[in-house]
Amino acid sequence: MRIAVLQATSAVGHIDANLDVLAAAAAEAAGGGADILVTPELFSTGYAPDRIHHLDGAAVRQSVSTLAVRHGIAIVASTVEQSDAERFITATLFGADGAQVIHYRKSHLFGAGEAQFFTAGAALSPVVRFGDLSVALGICYDVEFPEYVRALAVAGADLVLVPTAVPVRVASEFDPTAVPRLLVPARALENTVAIAYADQCGTGFAGHSCIVAPDGSFAARAENEPKLIFADITSEAIRSARAGNPYLRSRRLDLY
Amino acid sequence: MRIAVLQATSAVGHIDANLDVLAAAAAEAAGGGADILVTPELFSTGYAPDRIHHLDGAAVRQSVSTLAVRHGIAIVASTVEQSDAERFITATLFGADGAQVIHYRKSHLFGAGEAQFFTAGAALSPVVRFGDLSVALGICYDVEFPEYVRALAVAGADLVLVPTAVPVRVASEFDPTAVPRLLVPARALENTVAIAYADQCGTGFAGHSCIVAPDGSFAARAENEPKLIFADITSEAIRSARAGNPYLRSRRLDLY
Repeated sequence: MRIAVLQATSAVGHIDANLDVLAAAAAEAAGGGADILVTPELFSTGYAPDRIHHLDGAAVRQSVSTLAVRHGIAIVASTVEQSDAERFITATLFGADGAQVIHYRKSHLFGAGEAQFFTAGAALSPVVRFGDLSVALGICYDVEFPEYVRALAVAGADLVLVPTAVPVRVASEFDPTAVPRLLVPARALENTVAIAYADQCGTGFAGHSCIVAPDGSFAARAENEPKLIFADITSEAIRSARAGNPYLRSRRLDLY
Repeated sequence: MRIAVLQATSAVGHIDANLDVLAAAAAEAAGGGADILVTPELFSTGYAPDRIHHLDGAAVRQSVSTLAVRHGIAIVASTVEQSDAERFITATLFGADGAQVIHYRKSHLFGAGEAQFFTAGAALSPVVRFGDLSVALGICYDVEFPEYVRALAVAGADLVLVPTAVPVRVASEFDPTAVPRLLVPARALENTVAIAYADQCGTGFAGHSCIVAPDGSFAARAENEPKLIFADITSEAIRSARAGNPYLRSRRLDLY
């Protein structure tokens, strides 16, 4: 399966402009032979929980579905979902026919900003057969928790698609690129799954989007510039990684 | 706490010669102000499960205890334990007074060689107050499992001391340095614990021993040469990492 990952900066509140960027990426990804395009967390609205939590995610999802059909490519897009009085940060996998294959509500909210305006999802992503791989979704902070990706791998996932927006924390010495540099490839290696990690970039975000192979090596990666990256992930690579690193079979479930 | 990590190659079956190397490292570590010296997996016997499983670990442990007293430094040493008909790969933390502070049996055996000659331990390492940090042990493959280090961190560990011997797998494209480069710092960051990882080096082993700070950064690291590395890990660094990265408090235990 050929995967394209969009790294870009979205303009807060400018949904139409952001969807234009997404449409151009879908055209370029399809032109490059990609089967699926993964885009950053809250790309359509911009990543600013306090300013975008009220925006209409349903209309965005309809627009992305239309783009998927137009360009003949599956798309993962993240937006806001309103359900009664609750709002969720979501990611949706649309097939190339425009149908919703997975719709997932972020279960690990990051920081006080997200917790103030959003409700955490109550379930892991489903794992769904897509082409010759089993795929699942995660959003940003979710994949920093080894339990999250482990649970998806145990449920059968081969490939985890992750919209993200990793903020640079102003008053902190912590290097946020440690998340894509260390935690994302560690998740891939320790679970023998592939991960496509699509980050916002530019001032305020870590960038370093990547597609990681199931042995933990980078199949493609960006630095902090707007970029579309591509990599091929095959079922044979998944099988080979699992033959070499039997992590999923060697857990000591009696101990933890 | 000042930690020293010995990276070296031990000679299979030559216990006296290996203990001479360990004694020299204890003297150098103590001279460098270290409070504790961590040494590689099965260093006293050499890492060769099929050739060393019958050797007398009890005598080795007595010798290491004597070295700890002589040099006034705590030492973590890994050897073989016989208990009735069973044999275990073990690691023991000796205090500077020679007393056994922790004795741990490796719970995740690596590969067919270890499984053929050893029994897997039936418990996690205890977590014990040592100086101003809470410490625990792990051995090699143990720490490749996120569940293992997570369980220690949840039990209160600040610092995990890890004798290891990461083999280079002939006939495999997998790069074994991915374990110390990726998985070990990921374990530190995702649990906000420090990790001291003491590997065998030279032909056949990955080397890349390291001491990792609780934000996932390398406080000290080797490549593949015999070397003693030092780093200071403070309780303040642990507190600061936990204030910045609330991973231990943000888990969704209802989901996994």
